[in-house]
Amino acid sequence: MAHINVDENLPGIRSLLAFSPETATPMGKLANLLLRSNEGLTMAEREMIGAYVSYLNDCFYCEQSHSAIVTCYLNDNNKLINQVKKDYEHADISDKMKALLSIAGSVQKGGKHVTQQQIDDARNAGATDRDIHDTVLIAAMFCMFNRYVDGLAANTPTDLSTYMLREKQIMEHGYGNYIFSTT
Amino acid sequence: MAHINVDENLPGIRSLLAFSPETATPMGKLANLLLRSNEGLTMAEREMIGAYVSYLNDCFYCEQSHSAIVTCYLNDNNKLINQVKKDYEHADISDKMKALLSIAGSVQKGGKHVTQQQIDDARNAGATDRDIHDTVLIAAMFCMFNRYVDGLAANTPTDLSTYMLREKQIMEHGYGNYIFSTT
Repeated sequence: MAHINVDENLPGIRSLLAFSPETATPMGKLANLLLRSNEGLTMAEREMIGAYVSYLNDCFYCEQSHSAIVTCYLNDNNKLINQVKKDYEHADISDKMKALLSIAGSVQKGGKHVTQQQIDDARNAGATDRDIHDTVLIAAMFCMFNRYVDGLAANTPTDLSTYMLREKQIMEHGYGNYIFSTT
Repeated sequence: MAHINVDENLPGIRSLLAFSPETATPMGKLANLLLRSNEGLTMAEREMIGAYVSYLNDCFYCEQSHSAIVTCYLNDNNKLINQVKKDYEHADISDKMKALLSIAGSVQKGGKHVTQQQIDDARNAGATDRDIHDTVLIAAMFCMFNRYVDGLAANTPTDLSTYMLREKQIMEHGYGNYIFSTT
């Protein structure tokens, strides 16, 4: 049971967005801008940062949801996102992504954990100002989403197969009002 | 120096919002919805939650900015917000605000730190679903803002008198595009 009176048929953050549709609108817009772009980072890479930060924050709903979206984009049966969460340094991703995931992991702990060395490493691996900006803001945004979901104890489905069904909608349509549906 | 190439004449988050005006728009809208409302919680109480979470996150810029806004609203020369940051249990605030600040402090650590007892205490002190929702989302939003500012090492003015000048604009106009100005 959530800490507030929400529609328990809606999973995770969807129940909170339906409870407060006014705040849901800018949150969805921010998610669309940061996650539904291929400028610099691909959509799969952006979602990977979100899934990784949610994993570090131990937010089961967001971790499963955004891992499922990565898998939808890559069509790889969770292989790469599982590697990233287990040990991204040895995952089959670019050196740039490894450097950016290191920055995202520091942001998860707190902004001041990001070091100049991490920034230099990211630049040496080809990261631009935009890549670094988006990585920090995506990681920071998930620190908000994760706390919103777990701070209000939103309903978290345990049947993992349901995540993939829902997240196919995200892949196809982005973060919009349809996410209030129960499917 | 910030980690990315921003206008160093703009203080704190303002330099980042100017770097990325597309994402600044929904962030400003979310801040306006959550901080510029007197529904349930007053604007001063909402800013107090933000200042307190920024203090816990050790984000000097956000802490000073939002403490200055509280002071603008209350016209009390920082007295109450300093009490809150030092020891909110003995500050001159309502039992409801004490219970909500306790929840906000748990959200700052991570969503799962919020307990049913904290929720029950808040309800017993008169908090509604909306109050609890807004407290959790305000605290979560500041966990995003704080990480954005410090994760990118945005310029942080050390002259405390400048915060009050800037934050009077917020009190008068809310969170809008004028915040890109250098004053």
